[in-house]
Amino acid sequence: MRSHFCGLVDESMIGQTVTLCGWADVARNLGGLCFIDLRDHEGIVQIVAEPSEAEGNAEVLAAAAAVGYEDCLRVTGTVRRRASVNTKIRTGQVEVLATRIELLNKAQPLPFHAHENPGEDIRLKYRYLDLRRPEMQRMMRTRIRLVQALRRWLDARGFQDIETPILTKATPEGARDFLVPARLHPGEFYALPQSPQLFKQILMMAGFDRYYQIARCFRDEALRADRQLEFTQLDMEFAWVEERDVQDSVERMIRDVFREVIGVELDDPFPRMTYAEAMRRYGSDKPDLRIELELVDVVELVKDSQFKVFTDWASHADGRVAALRVPGGAAFSRKQIDDYGAHAGKFGAKGLAWIKLGEDGAFSSPIQKFFEPAAFEALATAVGLQKGDIAFFGAGTYKVVSDFMGALRLKVGKDLGLVQEGWKPLWVTDFPMFEWDDEQQRFVALHHPFTAPAVDDIAGLKANARTAVSRGYDMVLNGNEIGGGSIRIHRPDMQRAVFELLGIGAAEAEAKFGFLLDALKYGAPPHGGIAFGIDRIAALMAGTDSIRDVIAFPKTTTAQCLMTGAPSPVPEQQLAEVHVRVVAKTQE
Amino acid sequence: MRSHFCGLVDESMIGQTVTLCGWADVARNLGGLCFIDLRDHEGIVQIVAEPSEAEGNAEVLAAAAAVGYEDCLRVTGTVRRRASVNTKIRTGQVEVLATRIELLNKAQPLPFHAHENPGEDIRLKYRYLDLRRPEMQRMMRTRIRLVQALRRWLDARGFQDIETPILTKATPEGARDFLVPARLHPGEFYALPQSPQLFKQILMMAGFDRYYQIARCFRDEALRADRQLEFTQLDMEFAWVEERDVQDSVERMIRDVFREVIGVELDDPFPRMTYAEAMRRYGSDKPDLRIELELVDVVELVKDSQFKVFTDWASHADGRVAALRVPGGAAFSRKQIDDYGAHAGKFGAKGLAWIKLGEDGAFSSPIQKFFEPAAFEALATAVGLQKGDIAFFGAGTYKVVSDFMGALRLKVGKDLGLVQEGWKPLWVTDFPMFEWDDEQQRFVALHHPFTAPAVDDIAGLKANARTAVSRGYDMVLNGNEIGGGSIRIHRPDMQRAVFELLGIGAAEAEAKFGFLLDALKYGAPPHGGIAFGIDRIAALMAGTDSIRDVIAFPKTTTAQCLMTGAPSPVPEQQLAEVHVRVVAKTQE
Repeated sequence: MRSHFCGLVDESMIGQTVTLCGWADVARNLGGLCFIDLRDHEGIVQIVAEPSEAEGNAEVLAAAAAVGYEDCLRVTGTVRRRASVNTKIRTGQVEVLATRIELLNKAQPLPFHAHENPGEDIRLKYRYLDLRRPEMQRMMRTRIRLVQALRRWLDARGFQDIETPILTKATPEGARDFLVPARLHPGEFYALPQSPQLFKQILMMAGFDRYYQIARCFRDEALRADRQLEFTQLDMEFAWVEERDVQDSVERMIRDVFREVIGVELDDPFPRMTYAEAMRRYGSDKPDLRIELELVDVVELVKDSQFKVFTDWASHADGRVAALRVPGGAAFSRKQIDDYGAHAGKFGAKGLAWIKLGEDGAFSSPIQKFFEPAAFEALATAVGLQKGDIAFFGAGTYKVVSDFMGALRLKVGKDLGLVQEGWKPLWVTDFPMFEWDDEQQRFVALHHPFTAPAVDDIAGLKANARTAVSRGYDMVLNGNEIGGGSIRIHRPDMQRAVFELLGIGAAEAEAKFGFLLDALKYGAPPHGGIAFGIDRIAALMAGTDSIRDVIAFPKTTTAQCLMTGAPSPVPEQQLAEVHVRVVAKTQE
Repeated sequence: MRSHFCGLVDESMIGQTVTLCGWADVARNLGGLCFIDLRDHEGIVQIVAEPSEAEGNAEVLAAAAAVGYEDCLRVTGTVRRRASVNTKIRTGQVEVLATRIELLNKAQPLPFHAHENPGEDIRLKYRYLDLRRPEMQRMMRTRIRLVQALRRWLDARGFQDIETPILTKATPEGARDFLVPARLHPGEFYALPQSPQLFKQILMMAGFDRYYQIARCFRDEALRADRQLEFTQLDMEFAWVEERDVQDSVERMIRDVFREVIGVELDDPFPRMTYAEAMRRYGSDKPDLRIELELVDVVELVKDSQFKVFTDWASHADGRVAALRVPGGAAFSRKQIDDYGAHAGKFGAKGLAWIKLGEDGAFSSPIQKFFEPAAFEALATAVGLQKGDIAFFGAGTYKVVSDFMGALRLKVGKDLGLVQEGWKPLWVTDFPMFEWDDEQQRFVALHHPFTAPAVDDIAGLKANARTAVSRGYDMVLNGNEIGGGSIRIHRPDMQRAVFELLGIGAAEAEAKFGFLLDALKYGAPPHGGIAFGIDRIAALMAGTDSIRDVIAFPKTTTAQCLMTGAPSPVPEQQLAEVHVRVVAKTQE
C-alpha cells in the first residue's frame, strides 16, 4: 500500500514519486495551498497540495481541504525540496507535492491531541491514541529493543528459551495467588505462577543445562506505582555452577545490553557489597550509590549520654543508633525538619533527633543538653558535621533504624539535588538465610525456600539459623533491585531441613513440593540462577519513573484495564460451568 | 565447575586434562576396570578408572565402583585414544582416564531408565527424567530453534515484539474462557485471552505498524491429542496492508525457517486454492496434498438412477454426491469396507455405497442394480475406476459429504501407504464469511467477527450474507492448518453491520467491544495479520504426532499436570478473599 515510510523521506528521493500512509498530524490552509503533516512511526513529512493545471488537481485540493486531525490517509506525490527548511524534523529539507490523496479512514474529533499528555485515566482509556504519541512510541520501542538485545545475547550463548505453564499449581513465593477454577475438576483450581521458579529448577534436573524465558508472572498484591498484577521477568537458570559463574555471566549481559540499547557503559566489574555492609552504610539492601551520603554508627559516642532513647538502644543487643549528615541542612526550617521526621516515621521512626552547626559555628540541637560539651563535640565530629550542616539521628532496632535512616537518606538526596547523573550498579551478596517474623513467631525465607545456605552442613544450619547466610544475590541499579537470584538447594535432605526451619511440616512439604523433593532424589545437579525485572529495567532505560510507560496495556492501581473494562461481571451460567459462585459481601 | 561438555570431547583434546559434569548413563566393572558413560545435553563420553600407581588412585577406583545409574558426577581426567572405537557416538574415538570422580548428587533407583519409553502417565509424572532422554531433548530443542529462528527473522524486519495482557476481559472467539476472580472487585472476573486478537488490532491503531508476539493463549475446551488448555501462537499483525502483503511476507518466513531449522526446502511459491476448490477436490479446508486421491462429483451421472439416496440428494439444492476411487481397493474384505463405512459414519455418513472392479474386469456393487448398464459403466469411468480398484460413494448435504469423504480419503491414504514423503504447503483462501448454524438459527463467523468481507458495501453484504466471501486465509501444511489470518474490518460501520449479521445486538456489541468500536472511529488504518500454531509446527518439524512432545510441561487430556498435581483444592479462606465459593454438585 505504500512505497516508503513518512519519517524516512529524504533529499536523496527528490524528484521521485512516493506513496505514503499515515495520520494527519496537522493540516493547514494558507493562501490556496494546503499543508498536511503526515505521521507514521518513523516520523513526520510535509505534504503539499497546490493549484495546478494537472489532471485531477481539483480532487487533490478538495481532498486536502477536507483532511481532519488524525485522519488516516494514503498520499501519492513527488518529493521536492522545501522552500522553508524545518530543522526540527528529520525530513525537514523536503516535502511531497500530492498528486493523489486517499482518505482511508476518517477520524472523529479526538478526546485529546497527540501532542498533549492528558490525565493518566484518559490516556489508559484511549490507549491506542496515547501510544501514537512519539514519546510513548520511543519508550515502548526502548523496551522492545531491550528484550531483543537480551534474547540475542542469550541465544548466542546456548541458553534455551523454554516456556513453562501459566495454568499451574499454587506457588509458594509468599504472595497471594491468582486462582482459576478447573471446569473438569469441580472444587479444584489452577494458580497463575508467581514465577517459574520450580519449573526452571526442574529443567536443570531435566538436562537443559542453560535456560531462559521472558516470563509473565502474577502476584495478587496491593498495586503501587511500580507494581502490576502481571509483570515480566527475564528468568534464567544454570546447571553445574557456583555464584560467580552466574553473576559474571549476567553482569556481562547487562553491560552489553545497556551499551547496545542506550549507549551506556556500566562499571566493569560492578562493585560488590555484602548485605551487612549495605545496611550499615546505606540503610538499604538496594542502595542508590548515586547519592554519596552514608550513615554513621554512633553507639559508642552516645552510650554515656543522658538521652534515654539513645542509651536504651545503645545497650540493646539488637539496637542501632545512626546518624546522617546533610550538607547545608542547617538552613532547614523547623517545618522542614518536622517533614523529614514524618517521612522517617512512615518507615518506623518514632522521632528524629538532630544537631545543626550554623555558619557562625554555633550548635543548635534539642539533644545538646543530654551531653557533656566534649562528648557533644566528639559526636558532631564523628558524623562529619561542618558549618552549615545538619545531622539527623535515629535509634531503634537495627532493622528499623536502617529502614528509616535509609529512606531519609534517599529523600534528602533527592530534595537537595545530591543524586549524581549516571548509572551505579552493584551486587549485594551474603544475605541472611532467614528473617525472624515476630508476628508469626517463625522464620521466613529472605529470598525463597529453595535458596541454598552458605554452609553444607545441616546440623550447623539448624544450630545457627538466626545468623545463617544464604547463597542469594541481588543486582542493584540506581537504588532499584533489578535482578535477584541464588544458588539453589540441590540435595533433598537439605531442602527438607530448610522447609522444617521455615515451619513447613513434612506433610505440607510433601503436598506442596513433593515433586521437587522427588526430583532432587534422582541425581539433581548443583544449579542456580537469577531473574531480572524487565518492566523496571525498561523504565530505567526509557528514563521514566513509571513502569506503565513501558507496558502496552497496563492496569491501574485499582487493578483495572480502563480500555477493555476488565475485570467485569460474568453470567451465572458461566460460573456454574466452573463450579463456583460469587459470595455476597454479607456471606463472607 | 567444568571445562568441557561430555558430548564434545574429541581427538583434538587427546592428552589434555578435562573436567566434565553429567549423569552416569551406564556404569560397568570389567576385570578391575570401571567404565562409566557420562552424559550431558551434548552427548556421552566414556570415563575409565583403572588401577595405577598414581596418588589417589584408590579413591578414584572406589568412587567409580560406587557409581550408580543417573548419579550426578564431576569427573576430572585425561583424554586419550580409545582402544575399541565406538562408532555410534560422536566421542567414540576417545575416552577420559579419570584422576578424580566427585559424586555431586546420588540418584536413588529410578522409576524408569532413560533409554526406555514407559507409559505417558509415568513420563509426565517424572517429566524431569523423561526430558533427560536424548529423543525428548532433540524434540524440545527443535522447538526452541524454531522459535529462535522466527524471532530472528521478525526482528530483522522491523516487527515489534509487544506483550499483551494475560489478565484481560472475556474474549469473543467462541470458545469457553478461563476465569480469574478479581480480589479488589467482588463479583468480577478477569478472563485469560483466547488470543491477543483485539489487542493486536489496537496496536495497529496505536501506530506500531508491524507487531508480533509469541503469545500464550487459553481455551477451556475438550482436550484432544493435539489440544492443550494453554497453547502458543506466533501472533502477527500488519498495518496498511492487503492480503498478499501478509501472505507473501509470512510465506517467505515459513520457507526460511524450515530451511534453517530442519534443512527442508518448501515450494516457492506455495500453491493457492480457494475454500470451494479445497472442499470439492479434497473434502477439507486443510487438504493433505501428500495424498493424491481426489473426490469426484457425480451428481449428473446418478441423478437418473433408481437409487433413491442418490437421486434425492442429486436434486437437493444443497446436495452432494461424491466418489473416491481407491487404487487396489477391490481386494478389500467385506469387514474392511464396513470399517471404512463406520469411520465415515463418525463424520456424518449414513452409509457408503461402493463399486469394485475386479482384476478380471467384473464389477461388483450393491448399487449396480439401480443403474442401466451403460450408465453404470459411465459412472465407473467417470470416477476413474481401473481393474483392482474400489470406489466409495457418499451422498448428503454438501458440507456433510465433504466432511466424511474427506475423512475417508485421509484414512484410506494412510492405510494404503499413499501418503507421500515430504512437505506439502498451500494457501486456502476465499472462505465463506458466515456459516449458518441450524441449531442456533443464526450466522456464525467462520474465522472471527473482525474478519473483513471481500466486499466494501454494507448493503451488499447484508443482502448476500449466505454467499459472502471473507478476506480470511489459512496456511496448510501436510493436512494441518498451521496458520490462519485475515484482513480485518477497519471501519466502524462495517464492524457494526457484521456484529448485527452475527446476531450481536447494539447493546451487547457496546458492552463487549465498545473499545474496539471506539478505536475504529479515530483513524484506524487498514490492517491484517495471521497467527501460527507453534506447538503444531514444532511437532511437525520434530517428526512427532503429539504436541505434548514439544511442550516442556504439558497437561493430560483430563487437563491435569501429573508432575505438580495441578489443579488442586484451595483453602476456604483463600477463596473467600476472592469472593467466590465452590458450588457442590447438588447445588449446580
